[in-house]
Amino acid sequence: MEMNIALLPGDGIGPEVIEQAVKVVKAVGKKFGHTITFKEAVVGAAAIDATGNPYPDETHEVCLQADAVLFGAIGDPKYDNDPKAKVRPEQGLLAMRKKLGLFSNVRPTFTFPSLIHKSPLKKERIEGTDFVFLRELTGGIYFGEPRGRNEQGTKAFDTNVYTKEEITRLARMGFEFAQKRRKLLTCVDKANVLATSRLWRETVQELEPEYPDVKVEYEFVDAVAMRLIQWPKAYDVLITENLFGDILTDEASVISGSMGLMPSASLGSDVKLFEPIHGSYPQAAGKDIANPLATVLSAAMMFEYAFDLKDEAKAISDVVNLSLAEGVVTEDIAEESKPSKTSEVGDWLAEQIL
Amino acid sequence: MEMNIALLPGDGIGPEVIEQAVKVVKAVGKKFGHTITFKEAVVGAAAIDATGNPYPDETHEVCLQADAVLFGAIGDPKYDNDPKAKVRPEQGLLAMRKKLGLFSNVRPTFTFPSLIHKSPLKKERIEGTDFVFLRELTGGIYFGEPRGRNEQGTKAFDTNVYTKEEITRLARMGFEFAQKRRKLLTCVDKANVLATSRLWRETVQELEPEYPDVKVEYEFVDAVAMRLIQWPKAYDVLITENLFGDILTDEASVISGSMGLMPSASLGSDVKLFEPIHGSYPQAAGKDIANPLATVLSAAMMFEYAFDLKDEAKAISDVVNLSLAEGVVTEDIAEESKPSKTSEVGDWLAEQIL
Ligand SMILES: CC(C)[C@H](C(=O)O)[C@@H](O)C(=O)O
Ligand SMILES: CC(C)[C@H](C(=O)O)[C@@H](O)C(=O)O
Repeated sequence: MEMNIALLPGDGIGPEVIEQAVKVVKAVGKKFGHTITFKEAVVGAAAIDATGNPYPDETHEVCLQADAVLFGAIGDPKYDNDPKAKVRPEQGLLAMRKKLGLFSNVRPTFTFPSLIHKSPLKKERIEGTDFVFLRELTGGIYFGEPRGRNEQGTKAFDTNVYTKEEITRLARMGFEFAQKRRKLLTCVDKANVLATSRLWRETVQELEPEYPDVKVEYEFVDAVAMRLIQWPKAYDVLITENLFGDILTDEASVISGSMGLMPSASLGSDVKLFEPIHGSYPQAAGKDIANPLATVLSAAMMFEYAFDLKDEAKAISDVVNLSLAEGVVTEDIAEESKPSKTSEVGDWLAEQIL
Repeated sequence: MEMNIALLPGDGIGPEVIEQAVKVVKAVGKKFGHTITFKEAVVGAAAIDATGNPYPDETHEVCLQADAVLFGAIGDPKYDNDPKAKVRPEQGLLAMRKKLGLFSNVRPTFTFPSLIHKSPLKKERIEGTDFVFLRELTGGIYFGEPRGRNEQGTKAFDTNVYTKEEITRLARMGFEFAQKRRKLLTCVDKANVLATSRLWRETVQELEPEYPDVKVEYEFVDAVAMRLIQWPKAYDVLITENLFGDILTDEASVISGSMGLMPSASLGSDVKLFEPIHGSYPQAAGKDIANPLATVLSAAMMFEYAFDLKDEAKAISDVVNLSLAEGVVTEDIAEESKPSKTSEVGDWLAEQIL
């Protein structure tokens, strides 16, 4: 197969982890006989520095022409504590999601047998956890207007807004995921307070009869924030709005014992995007110590979701499991073994595939 | 001292747990020589059934005339899955908070030595956890206007809004709490996306010089959702907006191993309110099985925060610890011991105090 992949390394550790994913993707291409071309583009703080725009038009063009986008991370502390900064790296991420129509962020949570003891949670609570969040990604309070300040600057406001259509397309994807899995769908909202949440609940309720094989549960976001930690095995597929999804998927990442391993896919249009859920981790940037596995596993999701190539995806997750079992891992998760460098892990994984 | 206490049992298990707290408060009054008068009023679904209004004027009057309010729980499932219900029990809770000016919800998180093994988290991660959330309670997306639907009902919206004044008063309380504790204040926001969060961050930054002894950290809500579970001991005092506080304090309650034990205080005006953080737990209502300890500990907070009576507060927390140590507890946390009924726990605690 011919594959055009856009690489958006972004900020902080982004470039380093993307580099390792590229090694692995190339190895997969070689092994399975695919012709893979990569095209790199800037985004985030890196793009502000280069062009003044965190998601330049040229980058958007590169994404549109690609079959899939591999994205690293975004964010730079120099913008975080300046509440008056005019342009922010994150705006690039949001613009990219919106312009590419990536309305669904798919974030699986599962445990790795060889890492389970690293979780702050007890083994018996989390062993066998296997759920997936579908987080709405192009709506809600992330984009709603009006947003800003009053003239004197003494009052600030944001708008959370959802249309039935936006909810329906995400919910349908949720029902379909559930049909292919354990057939349980949890709609997470705050319908006892928010008008938007009531529209979510109503819309999902209306869709229920079309998917009679799926059991649907409705839970409040505060209850889920608790139960996710108490009984993670109780969940299968969860759908929720943008902001709740941001909070809950990061919370869920704790279960596995390492955020450095959790991949994600953003779906919704022809171009699909794949990224680790961890951030730009600026303290580690350039040190060759960042864990590349989440990005490598995001590349596995790419083969599965963008190209429907399950064997290729499995080849990657197999070597990741091997690296965990053999202790060829970075310092954040190394234990008995001597920690490997980011680049060494990438090299090792690529070799194992070939 | 003379104390007038308003009792708002509310819905579900509310009446049962309030009843036990009253037994304990009476015992404290007797032992320490206080004259305590109670006045009961309806709120929530109970109030809708009785008057059509979830927070009737008569109830508000009872609260205004009291020195402190002991509140049970609110919520009834018959309203939850009806997105079109016109009146909801929760509106009573929100109206009460707003009308009484209770802008700060104080929710401590700590562990109980005899319960620590019940936590889904590993002992070494949580032992010694001692932080407190100050959740803004009368602003944000809970109250912002406009909120509702477009005419066709196909679009819903909510408004998150904060003024500098609202943020300042909560933040000052946070700085003062930190000064009396370990002098670390964490401001939780989503300043990389929300205009309101940027006003939060800016306002807290401006206050910093007035409290030079307090170290201030700024963290994104998604990061805190993770770190709260990973490193709960890292936190001291956390301040945040209404919605983030709702989610994060419920999440935090998991740490202690039982939500049935976590109390809270709502401060901000002359009348202070005290309530367990658990909900109305309708499945258990009327069965005499609900855990009354969170409400009893809320009564302890009442003695401390509403009347500045630390010995009385300590007398209560001491007997609660005794009940845990001796296994005089309800079925949710009973282990070796035979579970006691809700009412038996209340009786036992009151006896121990006398
Ligand atoms: C960087 C930030 C804007 C972003 C978000 O909130 O969506 C990140 O936290 C994520 O989850 O991808
Ligand atoms: C019942 C609900 C409206 C309420 C809230 O969201 O504030 C509850 O969850 C709480 O935290 O007291």
